[in-house]
Amino acid sequence: MTLSDRIRNARGEALADLLLINGRVINVFSGEIISENIAISDGNFLGFGHYEAKEVVDLAGRFVAPGFIDAHLHIESTMTCVSEFVRAVLPRGTTTVIADPHEIANVAGAAGIEYMISSADAQPMNIYFTLPSCVPATHLETAGASLLAKDLAPLAGHPRVVGLGEMMNYPGVIYEDPTVLAKLEMMRSHHKPIDGHGPGLTGYELNAYIMAGIQSDHECTSLKEAREKLRSGMHIMIREGTGAKNLKDLLPLVTPQNAPRFMWCTDDRHLQDLLDSGHIDALVADAIRAGLDPVIAIQMATLYPATYFGLGHVGAISPGRQADLVIFSHLHDLVVEAVYIQGRPVAEDGRLLPRVLLPESRPIAQAMSVQPERLDLSIPDRGCDIRVIDIVPDQLITRQKTMAPTVRLKMAISDPDRDLLKIVVVERHQGTGNIGKGFVQGIGLQNGALAASVAHDSHNIIAVGANDQDMMTAIYRVVKTGGGMVAVCNGEILAELALPIAGLMSTEPLEAVRRKLDGLIAAARSLGSNLHDPFMTLSFLALPVIPELKITDKGLIDVGAFESVGLFVD
Amino acid sequence: MTLSDRIRNARGEALADLLLINGRVINVFSGEIISENIAISDGNFLGFGHYEAKEVVDLAGRFVAPGFIDAHLHIESTMTCVSEFVRAVLPRGTTTVIADPHEIANVAGAAGIEYMISSADAQPMNIYFTLPSCVPATHLETAGASLLAKDLAPLAGHPRVVGLGEMMNYPGVIYEDPTVLAKLEMMRSHHKPIDGHGPGLTGYELNAYIMAGIQSDHECTSLKEAREKLRSGMHIMIREGTGAKNLKDLLPLVTPQNAPRFMWCTDDRHLQDLLDSGHIDALVADAIRAGLDPVIAIQMATLYPATYFGLGHVGAISPGRQADLVIFSHLHDLVVEAVYIQGRPVAEDGRLLPRVLLPESRPIAQAMSVQPERLDLSIPDRGCDIRVIDIVPDQLITRQKTMAPTVRLKMAISDPDRDLLKIVVVERHQGTGNIGKGFVQGIGLQNGALAASVAHDSHNIIAVGANDQDMMTAIYRVVKTGGGMVAVCNGEILAELALPIAGLMSTEPLEAVRRKLDGLIAAARSLGSNLHDPFMTLSFLALPVIPELKITDKGLIDVGAFESVGLFVD
Repeated sequence: MTLSDRIRNARGEALADLLLINGRVINVFSGEIISENIAISDGNFLGFGHYEAKEVVDLAGRFVAPGFIDAHLHIESTMTCVSEFVRAVLPRGTTTVIADPHEIANVAGAAGIEYMISSADAQPMNIYFTLPSCVPATHLETAGASLLAKDLAPLAGHPRVVGLGEMMNYPGVIYEDPTVLAKLEMMRSHHKPIDGHGPGLTGYELNAYIMAGIQSDHECTSLKEAREKLRSGMHIMIREGTGAKNLKDLLPLVTPQNAPRFMWCTDDRHLQDLLDSGHIDALVADAIRAGLDPVIAIQMATLYPATYFGLGHVGAISPGRQADLVIFSHLHDLVVEAVYIQGRPVAEDGRLLPRVLLPESRPIAQAMSVQPERLDLSIPDRGCDIRVIDIVPDQLITRQKTMAPTVRLKMAISDPDRDLLKIVVVERHQGTGNIGKGFVQGIGLQNGALAASVAHDSHNIIAVGANDQDMMTAIYRVVKTGGGMVAVCNGEILAELALPIAGLMSTEPLEAVRRKLDGLIAAARSLGSNLHDPFMTLSFLALPVIPELKITDKGLIDVGAFESVGLFVD
Repeated sequence: MTLSDRIRNARGEALADLLLINGRVINVFSGEIISENIAISDGNFLGFGHYEAKEVVDLAGRFVAPGFIDAHLHIESTMTCVSEFVRAVLPRGTTTVIADPHEIANVAGAAGIEYMISSADAQPMNIYFTLPSCVPATHLETAGASLLAKDLAPLAGHPRVVGLGEMMNYPGVIYEDPTVLAKLEMMRSHHKPIDGHGPGLTGYELNAYIMAGIQSDHECTSLKEAREKLRSGMHIMIREGTGAKNLKDLLPLVTPQNAPRFMWCTDDRHLQDLLDSGHIDALVADAIRAGLDPVIAIQMATLYPATYFGLGHVGAISPGRQADLVIFSHLHDLVVEAVYIQGRPVAEDGRLLPRVLLPESRPIAQAMSVQPERLDLSIPDRGCDIRVIDIVPDQLITRQKTMAPTVRLKMAISDPDRDLLKIVVVERHQGTGNIGKGFVQGIGLQNGALAASVAHDSHNIIAVGANDQDMMTAIYRVVKTGGGMVAVCNGEILAELALPIAGLMSTEPLEAVRRKLDGLIAAARSLGSNLHDPFMTLSFLALPVIPELKITDKGLIDVGAFESVGLFVD
């Protein structure tokens, strides 16, 4: 359809495809709620007014708003493929997401990003991407790729790429690492925004970070922190993920006058949360319940992120914008009842409509570069104390403690009686044969072992267990299935979820994924763990940017010193 | 200075160039007024905080805001060159303008636009341009150029070009004129905004206009009109020019929640007004006096236009943005006391500082393609009534009346006793020899003649007089000086202003321009006119888009019928 045709339609010369009548429209431009008819043709809004239409839908006084936008998330965190992710969040009213394929890029590099971009094609949803800025996350681990500015540059102009993803390497920015600055300058030359990730940055360092061109932040945890970043010119993404939840703390900062500087995001939100609590709809509803003006809450979910990312074709009801809509009955107890994409209903009452087809997801050809038969998990004792990772339940941080190992046959071994379990990270990308070995307290397994190829940020294989044999069985299984999560006991697979997409995502329907995830947690519990989600805890034990003691394929990492340390305290 | 250097400065590693202390900062991000120190280096903000600096300026509690932005104006309307325009508005706190060189483009085409763009170089002010979208304005007049999409395209990528200028040809948009749509699509491909000009557009036609990609409007005159455009997704520029004044009518629409959709502009503001009343500072002050929250008034003058035009480096105080500032003592009686550009003081107490150098302006080589000796102003009588342009004092619209001519020697002639004056438009661009001839009532000259090469939008030479001889003298003079405005009586030049820049702008200092403009008005008054500004009235009599009867080089124009009509009513 040409521009000429679209103009003629807006002029009312032809029958509109659809007219929504008797709706109460959330007008994100004027900040009002107005009773208007909405006309739609060829997937786009024609405007408000009395158009003749092929089809008329009576909204009977229900509210209608532009579709919701998640300003920053990692689809990989749901462990579902892109199509199943869409099936999870589209019925909740999310019509546009800005995804940062950081996890898959750590595994598969630019090919992983391209995989995600192509997976966005033909989806009944607008999926945009920021390019991962920090692959690998650190030099303290072996990732599947290293992406420099020159590697990202060919993707920066892609129409689905809307910016540079969260620049987690804030020391690199602030202390002018040329490889980091090159990425910023590369994206700046494309006039696309650069997202930040600067937890706790303040004063000079914050100014330096913004000076470098970082425009947003989704890591604020306190009002004070968010206020300084807001005042200094950053756009604030209020995050409400599975782990990190900042809505209640940051909401008091939002006023009608500064609200355009705010957006919602979920960052990492697990499938269970998406299915049980929802997505951006849940954030909007929570914010309204907490006292935020409903129209502002919706502006932060629509026009403001669209404006920030330069997506002038979504985020509002206006002639020429894409007709993506959510419909709901109650402003103060917001439950999305229907969702339209490009003027067609795609979901009702929380379910995708049967006629909505999702592209089939394909596995990513990703060999596990591991030779399990060569793995040696044994830890010869050295007659001195060992450093032990001490888990803080339900938090990403750990503590470090020093204690005597349990030794048998001159080997330091798992000792469930002391809740002292062996933990290993097996490098899976480059075939280095690297294994990091250590001990952890707080997992609580009495028997068996757990292993997973989801282990932030490099996603090597992490395994923990009450004995080496079960750990080996678990690792073997993960390698054999091309990635996944598994719980093993006495050589038997108790539960598992195969993740053939880069060892991060399943190709199965989300219900199956959820069932298997629940099964994995149940299995881990049956083996003795009392953690809320032992696999989630496990997946962050390899992340060497969160204090205090972590483990990667290069061994134990003292995060404070930002260097690897020996297991034994000599 | 490299990005690395700038980051290091923000980190506080080097002495800042300047620290402003004890200021009350208008924070346009958070919508607050905050006591903060502002550090500046190398022309850019480093941020808030306690920086060591080479120079410390104590603001002693005064207010400091980002420099003001005029979102849409025609510099030509001041009749001063760019440098003198800067001298007029910079001391008022205007640090950035978005100029539409529509007038000079009608005279000199793309070369005129290029002239303005190059005149912006080395100015102590940020001057950006929208490309004129409607040259010529109509087919009912002969302009100096015709600019199609292909003529504008080479300029669209210029860093000083930020969008397409006001699309006045809204019928062409709404009824899909392919040459018009080609311009829209051309600028859209550059991802730069397209400004509108759609007075009175509503309903289907408004929707069609927005559908075409028009993003803003500065022609709203009523609350109802502005409200519809706002709700439909347009950015609203509230205009307060010399002729059109919309601030008081539109201000009630602005709320904290919708304010980001608003900006200020002056469109056409004459030199006298700039000098006597001010520029954007006057709009901001007026709005505050009328009850608008001062911070919102300033946001509309800074961050919001900067965001709309994608000028991320101005419009706010934030690390890395250009250190353009205004300083004032009173929030509710705002008078700009000092102005900084790129961290250096450029004006104080309404005057440019002596050390601030403005580039010398040069005339534009613009032959007047007129052979005055061939001009024949005579109008042979045809023995019937004539159509007469009936002026409505101080308005751009005219009425049409029909009356008998005064005839002598078989010629219809000026008759000051009936206030029936001959008026002619002499084509000056293409040497066609076209003369439009007619009569006008309401100018009031008893003797002499007036002529000017400023006559919207094609800027041919317009002349009116009590007798043909003085009209000829006036036209001769305008031609001889390469353009200008002149008042003549009995063959003698009473007053004049040469406009050697395309017949539109002077190269003289603004004080001289103002004195000569005052002299011209005084001369016209001495010749009998009671109009507020007879030259301004004259300059709009050739604009065939404002009802009811106008005159161009092609003759009388019935604006309602949008066609030329004969002088005699046969």
